[in-house]
Amino acid sequence: MTAPQPHGSDRPAEPARPHGSTRPGGRTARTRAAVLAAAWEELDRRDFASLTIDLIAQRSGVHAATIRRRWRTVEGVISDILSQHGETIPVPDTGSLRQDLHALARSIADFYTPPRNQRLVEAVVTAAVREPGAAEVLHNVFGDRIRRVAVMVERAAERGEVAADTDGEEVIAALGAPFYYRLLMTRRPVDAELAHRSAEAAYLAAVEGVFRTGRRAP
Amino acid sequence: MTAPQPHGSDRPAEPARPHGSTRPGGRTARTRAAVLAAAWEELDRRDFASLTIDLIAQRSGVHAATIRRRWRTVEGVISDILSQHGETIPVPDTGSLRQDLHALARSIADFYTPPRNQRLVEAVVTAAVREPGAAEVLHNVFGDRIRRVAVMVERAAERGEVAADTDGEEVIAALGAPFYYRLLMTRRPVDAELAHRSAEAAYLAAVEGVFRTGRRAP
Repeated sequence: MTAPQPHGSDRPAEPARPHGSTRPGGRTARTRAAVLAAAWEELDRRDFASLTIDLIAQRSGVHAATIRRRWRTVEGVISDILSQHGETIPVPDTGSLRQDLHALARSIADFYTPPRNQRLVEAVVTAAVREPGAAEVLHNVFGDRIRRVAVMVERAAERGEVAADTDGEEVIAALGAPFYYRLLMTRRPVDAELAHRSAEAAYLAAVEGVFRTGRRAP
Repeated sequence: MTAPQPHGSDRPAEPARPHGSTRPGGRTARTRAAVLAAAWEELDRRDFASLTIDLIAQRSGVHAATIRRRWRTVEGVISDILSQHGETIPVPDTGSLRQDLHALARSIADFYTPPRNQRLVEAVVTAAVREPGAAEVLHNVFGDRIRRVAVMVERAAERGEVAADTDGEEVIAALGAPFYYRLLMTRRPVDAELAHRSAEAAYLAAVEGVFRTGRRAP
């Protein structure tokens, strides 16, 4: 899981974009790329608390008024980085649910190892507590990520590794939860052992039927 | 798991008390009880963002200067509520690890069902991001809670339900993590199904040896 890479034209719809024009691939996409890259670079140098729209404007060369119109707040920009990052996660497809879950857990651990990325999640969670708008973005961004990755559980159900009525989103949430608990609650660094245990615990629970809904699959 | 009940004399040491005198059971304990109860009541009426030391002073009848001297900030008061709550958690002891874990998960779900308690955890996590002092309190409070409850895994090891080198604190963290993920990341309410799944997943992983350290027990 690498740093979010702003990428250009012919992108799919941007689910968490709060505002702005709809011209795809043109100036709008370039503006988004420049602003998100600038905010990302600034977060490597400073705490979230000292990040301002004006600093992002200076580094990106985009007018502060334009940034305010499209993202409203620094929290809006940060949430959009997270959203973009979610769009670029590769979904493992090794042919084995156990291996897919371990690959996903390792990619989450890798992502949250640099302090900058720990600050990113802290910033987004803090913003969500203070602003209903940011809370909605967080809810949507994490919902989208989980839904995208949950396809690996659907594939496992098709292969007969787990029951057909397994709730894939809950499997993915169970795998991801210990990372955020570690970062936000016990406030210790994530590591490879946490990744191994999270993946293995989610896998065992999934094959044992813990996440079955009791509803027949469509 | 009920609301934190300030209680009076002959209490054990207060691990997260930031400051203050050391006279146990006297005026100091009464002051703490009054201040924490007042903050708790205020949180039922307002958001954390609008809670101030002066409001707590008004409701508790304790001078604002006294509150500032002992807890420094609103975050300090909130963290102390959390600490006090942790001290009063009953540790289930049913004779079965599975039942103990389910009882614990239900008590966590019950605690985080009222919106006030959701706001409590949001407030503490937000404070920890902004203030190193609050982060240390959060780290210590959650560390203490986990260590206290992890004794149920030690008992299970003595009964032969899990391997002797099972890391009890990691079992408890695995059980608790999905609640905080739900509250802080996907921002949906916790419910009985989440409690059931979290307990069952932690139990299965524990008995399968996922949380073994590979070190011999002392």
